[in-house]
Amino acid sequence: MSTLWKSRYAQRTLGVKSSAIRELLKVTQRPEVISFAGGLPAPEVFPVERFDQACQKVLAQHGALALQYGTTEGYQPLREMIARNIARYGIFAKAENVLITSGSQQALDLIGKLLINRGDRILLEAPTYLGALQAFSVYGAQYVSVPVDEDGMLTDQVDASLRAGPKFMYVLPNFQNPAGVTLSEGRRHQLILLADKYGIPIVEDDPYGQLRYEGEHIAPLVALDRQNLRRDNGFTLGNVIYLSTFSKTLAPGIRLAWIVAPEDVISRLVLLKQAADLHTSTFNQFVAYEVARDGFLDQHVKLIRQVYRERRDAMLDALQQYFPPEVTWTHPKGGLFLWVTMPEGTDSEALFHAALAENVAFVAGDCFYANNGGEGSRHMRLNFSHSKPEMIREGIRRLSIAVKTQLKGKSHSASPLKPSEFSRQ
Amino acid sequence: MSTLWKSRYAQRTLGVKSSAIRELLKVTQRPEVISFAGGLPAPEVFPVERFDQACQKVLAQHGALALQYGTTEGYQPLREMIARNIARYGIFAKAENVLITSGSQQALDLIGKLLINRGDRILLEAPTYLGALQAFSVYGAQYVSVPVDEDGMLTDQVDASLRAGPKFMYVLPNFQNPAGVTLSEGRRHQLILLADKYGIPIVEDDPYGQLRYEGEHIAPLVALDRQNLRRDNGFTLGNVIYLSTFSKTLAPGIRLAWIVAPEDVISRLVLLKQAADLHTSTFNQFVAYEVARDGFLDQHVKLIRQVYRERRDAMLDALQQYFPPEVTWTHPKGGLFLWVTMPEGTDSEALFHAALAENVAFVAGDCFYANNGGEGSRHMRLNFSHSKPEMIREGIRRLSIAVKTQLKGKSHSASPLKPSEFSRQ
Repeated sequence: MSTLWKSRYAQRTLGVKSSAIRELLKVTQRPEVISFAGGLPAPEVFPVERFDQACQKVLAQHGALALQYGTTEGYQPLREMIARNIARYGIFAKAENVLITSGSQQALDLIGKLLINRGDRILLEAPTYLGALQAFSVYGAQYVSVPVDEDGMLTDQVDASLRAGPKFMYVLPNFQNPAGVTLSEGRRHQLILLADKYGIPIVEDDPYGQLRYEGEHIAPLVALDRQNLRRDNGFTLGNVIYLSTFSKTLAPGIRLAWIVAPEDVISRLVLLKQAADLHTSTFNQFVAYEVARDGFLDQHVKLIRQVYRERRDAMLDALQQYFPPEVTWTHPKGGLFLWVTMPEGTDSEALFHAALAENVAFVAGDCFYANNGGEGSRHMRLNFSHSKPEMIREGIRRLSIAVKTQLKGKSHSASPLKPSEFSRQ
Repeated sequence: MSTLWKSRYAQRTLGVKSSAIRELLKVTQRPEVISFAGGLPAPEVFPVERFDQACQKVLAQHGALALQYGTTEGYQPLREMIARNIARYGIFAKAENVLITSGSQQALDLIGKLLINRGDRILLEAPTYLGALQAFSVYGAQYVSVPVDEDGMLTDQVDASLRAGPKFMYVLPNFQNPAGVTLSEGRRHQLILLADKYGIPIVEDDPYGQLRYEGEHIAPLVALDRQNLRRDNGFTLGNVIYLSTFSKTLAPGIRLAWIVAPEDVISRLVLLKQAADLHTSTFNQFVAYEVARDGFLDQHVKLIRQVYRERRDAMLDALQQYFPPEVTWTHPKGGLFLWVTMPEGTDSEALFHAALAENVAFVAGDCFYANNGGEGSRHMRLNFSHSKPEMIREGIRRLSIAVKTQLKGKSHSASPLKPSEFSRQ
């Protein structure tokens, strides 16, 4: 009987709850719903033909190796390619600093497993990526949250929080999920100095870094870390572990991401990964290497940028046209998401149900806060990568109906509006 | 500096050590070495052409879905196919009882995460699968070991051990890794009764069940559990969680395995898997479904059985011809491994190095024991699936040289021989 199992669940699992996002992904599958809920890439930009050629080539030339067990560290040519690619962003790393993971979610899980003892505090942004909260919470993490504005984490508030002695900082500097904001160059330098000053390392999560639609590239934290050095005999890495992925540039269905870290951190992570899933699909690593090589990845990212920029602009335009003036939103310079702020007192969960009645979906802000004191309930995360421009326009129109009704309903009880931390652009 | 990281490693990681097997896989890559070390399937039996057709079909017909994010539970048609396939073995399950995992190693990791609090005892076989020890040890498991003989775990000894209150039993009933032995039908019934009597559930790991080369199929534990019932409104599962994989029947490089469990256990595992890697590669699940469907998997397993039976026989014959009479070995009726027992006092690690000097490799027995009191040092695990018959013959000849030298070297100091628990056949 299954009660036999229930009584045996380990302590760590008792706090693990179903994620709102999982439920939302089910909603996105109803064809009549225009969904801004998931974080799905546009299937129209999947390089299906290139995948087809790559699969054929891999099976014809390397079938016996590509279908066999592989090393835990990952397919060596892929690790080398990643090390070469990130050198362009000033990250000095060897293939030995790169561990291939089964998606970024596994990277977060392995980092949680490596670093978090029950009760350890992690410093992170409010709001922050839900998947990181899920991964870290399994290991009993507590959180110290620092708010963000259009320029990312408010680093002026980090100093005080670091004195509380968090185990590490978890930061999404580029086009952050969920808020779509980007950490400014000045704040990046400040954060690196603080990491050094307090001896508290940084986990830098950068799934969207290549998907910039305007403005200049800003160096990642790992490249600003003065301990990341190029030397005669190779490279060293220091206070920053850097994560990125092929999920947004090739396809999420192949579950391929990577961790860049000092070699002794990698060797520990390798042991944990070995116990967790032995290694990431050899076949997918061979295929991704064949897809990405010879400059294809760079060319393809250009296409994605073009498509997503158009969708972002469609959403910004529609918001401007349809949404009431007391609602504001971020102006993401890249990535997949923007973040809407409604007047204080708005109940985004009620709004979610009202929106669903109009056949449009989003993610309510609450689930992106580590210490949910209700700050999230006036926010919603909107994804603009998955729907085509005309659907975005229609979806925002539908959503505006729900928003206006919602705002009218509570207008007589509304508390005075505080200025939003996000400018409307 | 990386010391910053080192000082921050979580307690759970401190005991995690590099596995001998990882080092050994590197040895297997030296072309002059005949390796009986890994647990590698024969690449000659990978259905490369069928994979090629499947990839093309999946990309042509389902590219947008197969490259996209998927549900954590797994690709529904694949779950349904697995539920149908295991019904032949008397396992009554719906697709909802099946969770797709990124290889069996992830199944073991998720089960460890779900069930093990630091210090919990797990009852398992001595020797047992190294990967399970690695997965469970991350969560602080302690072990209660029960020896095996040709008929598997000595269930007569289980009763006493169960009184020590282990969290669960971990058992490999078919062609066990590493010993190659199979739990007899009588002992299976006995184990199920004991699980019921003490209310201690079983995790049944069955990666090799379909690879039987002689004798009759024996029902898995999960099918003998009287709580696994077919009812009007579906099925129920009870005290046994069942694991299996495509790694030995299709290919390990696609990292696809599954857990069969009661629905509320599955729903807990889904939450943990979501935090661990979101989901298993959608693409690989679509491809495996296309490869396996329309009876191909069954046909292909027949071919594998034929190839591996021949290799097993080649190894048994060569052992008989070359090995000295004081050495014994198991006669596996299926699977990938056999287990050699040398006279007491043999040092299998010294033997390993002597063998390597002869360009032949195996895994020394020690690493397969949860509580290593030196029982393993007179054993070696030999894999017979990966090398062709003529190489097996040559490898065993080389190995016999090392064994004979080793036995001669210690003959004057040898302790009286105890009868081996394994019969020589």
